Amino acid sequence: MNVTLLSDFGTRDGYVGALKGSLLRRAPGARLIDVSHDIAPGAIASGAFVLAQAAPHFPSGTVHLAVVDPGVGSERRAIACEIGGHHYVAPDNGLLTLVLDLGGTVRAHLISRSELWNSEVSPVFHGRDIFAPVAGHLAGGGRLEEVGPSIDPSTLVRLPEPEVRSLDAALVGEVVHVDRFGNLITNLRRQADERADMLVEAAGSTLQLRRAYADVPQGELLALVGSSGRVEIACNGASAAKVLGADVGSVVVLRTLGRS
Amino acid sequence: MNVTLLSDFGTRDGYVGALKGSLLRRAPGARLIDVSHDIAPGAIASGAFVLAQAAPHFPSGTVHLAVVDPGVGSERRAIACEIGGHHYVAPDNGLLTLVLDLGGTVRAHLISRSELWNSEVSPVFHGRDIFAPVAGHLAGGGRLEEVGPSIDPSTLVRLPEPEVRSLDAALVGEVVHVDRFGNLITNLRRQADERADMLVEAAGSTLQLRRAYADVPQGELLALVGSSGRVEIACNGASAAKVLGADVGSVVVLRTLGRS
Amino acid sequence: MNVTLLSDFGTRDGYVGALKGSLLRRAPGARLIDVSHDIAPGAIASGAFVLAQAAPHFPSGTVHLAVVDPGVGSERRAIACEIGGHHYVAPDNGLLTLVLDLGGTVRAHLISRSELWNSEVSPVFHGRDIFAPVAGHLAGGGRLEEVGPSIDPSTLVRLPEPEVRSLDAALVGEVVHVDRFGNLITNLRRQADERADMLVEAAGSTLQLRRAYADVPQGELLALVGSSGRVEIACNGASAAKVLGADVGSVVVLRTLGRS
Repeated sequence: MNVTLLSDFGTRDGYVGALKGSLLRRAPGARLIDVSHDIAPGAIASGAFVLAQAAPHFPSGTVHLAVVDPGVGSERRAIACEIGGHHYVAPDNGLLTLVLDLGGTVRAHLISRSELWNSEVSPVFHGRDIFAPVAGHLAGGGRLEEVGPSIDPSTLVRLPEPEVRSLDAALVGEVVHVDRFGNLITNLRRQADERADMLVEAAGSTLQLRRAYADVPQGELLALVGSSGRVEIACNGASAAKVLGADVGSVVVLRTLGRS
Repeated sequence: MNVTLLSDFGTRDGYVGALKGSLLRRAPGARLIDVSHDIAPGAIASGAFVLAQAAPHFPSGTVHLAVVDPGVGSERRAIACEIGGHHYVAPDNGLLTLVLDLGGTVRAHLISRSELWNSEVSPVFHGRDIFAPVAGHLAGGGRLEEVGPSIDPSTLVRLPEPEVRSLDAALVGEVVHVDRFGNLITNLRRQADERADMLVEAAGSTLQLRRAYADVPQGELLALVGSSGRVEIACNGASAAKVLGADVGSVVVLRTLGRS
Repeated sequence: MNVTLLSDFGTRDGYVGALKGSLLRRAPGARLIDVSHDIAPGAIASGAFVLAQAAPHFPSGTVHLAVVDPGVGSERRAIACEIGGHHYVAPDNGLLTLVLDLGGTVRAHLISRSELWNSEVSPVFHGRDIFAPVAGHLAGGGRLEEVGPSIDPSTLVRLPEPEVRSLDAALVGEVVHVDRFGNLITNLRRQADERADMLVEAAGSTLQLRRAYADVPQGELLALVGSSGRVEIACNGASAAKVLGADVGSVVVLRTLGRS
């Protein structure tokens, strides 16, 4: 059984290893797949974004273990969910927000049955001592019902999502993620084939919606519909974030051509 | 069979891949599990710390391949050990110090039987040409005795461990590791339930021993017993190392409350 | 079946996860092995170097998926090749240059049969939507012929390789890669046992060819034959790149002793 791993643990310490070991003690045959351990420390919104970029592409039945957990040891709930045919094990702090937005049937359970956990639980490392063994339980064929009682999916914590506003014929959104390449990914969603006659404005630049990076010369800015169906601003061969001095929160306007 | 990998090779070069390939050539069905490749170059003490954070959480029989090997090509020995039911393959340079401290029966063998190695051995990459094939040998069910002659475990190289001194009712230790979150991890060991009436002093701050990060407001310093049973100094939502300007080697005092 | 992964996607975003998921949807039992995702964005030459450092050490039949693809969505071809008994899936942009240089029989096929791809193909993420499913096809036992028509291997895009010039008894080359340790790796190739009476000159320093880092005191520069058979300049316990202020492109001269 495949188990994906996402965390903010970084790759310099033993935390990722301890979590993997703990999972394998419960499910020795699990195949562990690193998604990312480089979510910024405690950055739940960023973790939620990356999880939703990756998780839906895995086969049905995959177990996704996601731990960005700044509230570890507080009263925040620990949850195991089935969402659209995938299993998720995570703190109930909003990390599943964008995965829930993808749709599909949701079943949610509170993680409360401590017989499944490590015999000693550190109050600062539930990833290793609670979440990993529970993910191992599911990966080994254990049932969701066995981790604890069912809870109402509508009670799951959701991050506030930045609003898209309509203004005349334009949509006003914002940058929600900056990726490794410096691409500015927005909360404006579009189908790849809807791009015909749109203009995108950000940080004083007005850009035509293109198909791919190589549609403009090296070093030039462009807008396109990114691989998750979101409008993004890029720069062919360089970082749009640096070129524009833009970041998460920067305003982006999507305008039907001819109405500007 | 699960094989964990720890090194200072970084993730930009082909060294990790070459090591993995070499291991799989010997044991094609091994499941490779990355613990860390981001140990600072040549930082044996840091590697020893991270290995001991992670390795004991894996199932018995796991093979741990650990290569932080600044003395590669010199006279330092190459060793394969069984420690507390786990197998370790590493240079004999102190990298196993903290794993040995965890206790358990120890059997140590010199790696000397070159039939197990790659046919050509680079004097600067024993990880690929000696350690990985030997780890593959063990992962494939080969016996420890087959890698070379038994050696006396008391002859294994150990790193000097920073001393904890008693001073009146206080214990004086020091920071031994700074993790990704900026937590200052010390050589003062405590059980999580012993924290009742202790104070921790470091870099001019006096902190109560708490249970979890969220026990103090955002941005506030605290002390707690970390997930490896060591006293650590943290800052809720920020880096204690930055806030305090402390680093490995900084003095930390643990004091019974009321005696300061 | 083992599948290795190399990309410039970095480890902060969901791209690596999406690619892995997409591959596993096609070949659920594949064992995924990360080689590197930290190739600098769009750095084809660097990706080619790292791929050739790692790939040949894997067992025959391994599938190598390599995606450094700044021209995604342009007219560059997508290819699947068998080279020396290994399978490679990559954009045809030079990424396989150094693997092709290693020799062995080559069969090359154009990736064109879209039934093998994801049902929707993003013009900016062929890694996820074309290359990963094709790698999954091969990992699941699918045949190379099934991905598209055979193409002439001599038409594959090759990067220009920096030339080695002869000057009297000396060879003049250059630095082609700087690794994590700051070692300066050159395009001058030598067998490890040919080092007897050579001098290496770079950035004003003249260095004897040694066997291993530990052959000189801490902090001293040396030259040696690195683990891929290339002359490299190193510094025991430090970064030769920093000490010498050298980088990719810096001139390096290899001279037979006594003729300088």
